[in-house]
Amino acid sequence: MKILLVGATGSIGEVVYEELKNDAEIIQASRNSSEYPIDITSEESIKALFEKVGEVDAIICAAGSAHFATVDELTPEQNMIAVNSKQLGQVNLVLIGLHYLKDHGSITLTTGVLMDDPLKTASSSAMANGGVSAFVKSAAIEMPRGIRINHVSPSMLEKSKEKYGKLFQGFQPVSSERIGLAYRKSVFGAQTGQAYNVY
Amino acid sequence: MKILLVGATGSIGEVVYEELKNDAEIIQASRNSSEYPIDITSEESIKALFEKVGEVDAIICAAGSAHFATVDELTPEQNMIAVNSKQLGQVNLVLIGLHYLKDHGSITLTTGVLMDDPLKTASSSAMANGGVSAFVKSAAIEMPRGIRINHVSPSMLEKSKEKYGKLFQGFQPVSSERIGLAYRKSVFGAQTGQAYNVY
Ligand SMILES: NC(=O)c1ccc[n+]([C@@H]2O[C@H](COP(=O)([O-])OP(=O)(O)OC[C@H]3O[C@@H](n4cnc5c(N)ncnc54)[C@H](OP(=O)(O)O)[C@@H]3O)[C@@H](O)[C@H]2O)c1
Ligand SMILES: NC(=O)c1ccc[n+]([C@@H]2O[C@H](COP(=O)([O-])OP(=O)(O)OC[C@H]3O[C@@H](n4cnc5c(N)ncnc54)[C@H](OP(=O)(O)O)[C@@H]3O)[C@@H](O)[C@H]2O)c1
Repeated sequence: MKILLVGATGSIGEVVYEELKNDAEIIQASRNSSEYPIDITSEESIKALFEKVGEVDAIICAAGSAHFATVDELTPEQNMIAVNSKQLGQVNLVLIGLHYLKDHGSITLTTGVLMDDPLKTASSSAMANGGVSAFVKSAAIEMPRGIRINHVSPSMLEKSKEKYGKLFQGFQPVSSERIGLAYRKSVFGAQTGQAYNVY
Repeated sequence: MKILLVGATGSIGEVVYEELKNDAEIIQASRNSSEYPIDITSEESIKALFEKVGEVDAIICAAGSAHFATVDELTPEQNMIAVNSKQLGQVNLVLIGLHYLKDHGSITLTTGVLMDDPLKTASSSAMANGGVSAFVKSAAIEMPRGIRINHVSPSMLEKSKEKYGKLFQGFQPVSSERIGLAYRKSVFGAQTGQAYNVY
């Protein structure tokens, strides 16, 4: 099995890599990768990577960013960061990547707890997560060739507590193990259209 | 009470106007309006309308479009129609309009049943609805000056059955009365961060 993992060098991406590395050949892609560079905010970059990599059995995306600001300070321009990366970056990875997926392949995207359990300054991130979540639910019913699509919605990772703990007051950090298992379920299971909430 | 109604000439907009016209002064805005023109896909156009209209007590948006295509045919460009109108058009109306809303004012956006009850060819529309829904839930907890925000998620209107009935197989059409009441609840009630599903 050949898996394209986008965002492989990130906190979540590393967890996914560790969980799956013994069960599949994993292509570790990210913006700064020298071997498999991809910028999901660019359609051309997405296409170029797939042309290089060819057919895969699974696509996993754990890349995406967002600007944090209260809704009375957030500008339409700042909101575009999440729109272009977290949301459209992931959706375009599906629209383009679909044609490089083998029959009965799978796609796993990454959303996040902020769409369900909101925090101050996080409405742009929540919006992007909500868009991806609804897209996955809808796209799943019409995926061709037995292809499945799910998303994992992580709460704050234990190992990201230093970075995000101030923002995520009162959130129970989740273990890398639980996060890894959710991606495993999506790739090796048979379900589609699911939100795997790791809260 | 002064209400800005964007999309006033549409199927939903007309219902909202009929429901509220005896209780408020309603500014009927839409793309082709000669008196109150607005194109929500343009930030400049949104700003220009608010500069003309000044402060309002409530903003209602019932405007938005989307491209319908199966996920293996949908292109990133076609997906931008829903992103720019349904999703970012409505979000930008909030980000800009917020500053023209009186204290304790309200904002009511429009999503739709497709994010919860998916149909073939509707993933772009579902995505935009899901984005708006999560944005509303998150923005509500940090709105300044007692401002509230909700969205109404209509199923297919009875009067839209001719136009959409072929697509919405097995959906119970909903009455204009029920749709109108949901917008009334959002404007005259005290709740915030709600999804008023009219299914
Ligand atoms: N960490 C958490 O606790 C947590 C919890 C919930 C949700 N999430 C979500 O999960 C996703 C990943 O989070 P993370 O904490 O793992 O982020 P991270 O540590 O910052 O890592 C991001 C990864 O994605 C890559 N990347 C970033 N922008 C990219 C782009 N435009 N195109 C291609 N690759 C790109 C990065 O590569 P380069 O370094 O080469 O740019 C890196 O490999 C985000 O959407 C985040 O909101 C994270
Ligand atoms: N009708 C239904 O059964 C139904 C059910 C669920 C959800 N919805 C959702 O509700 C929203 C409105 O639907 P509808 O059926 O009432 O649509 P509609 O009959 O086509 O009316 C759309 C209204 O919005 C205006 N408009 C369109 N694009 C605009 C833009 N870029 N900027 C400003 N105004 C714009 C139109 O004005 P002009 O004519 O001047 O362009 C018109 O007043 C859509 O998001 C739709 O998906 C509708």
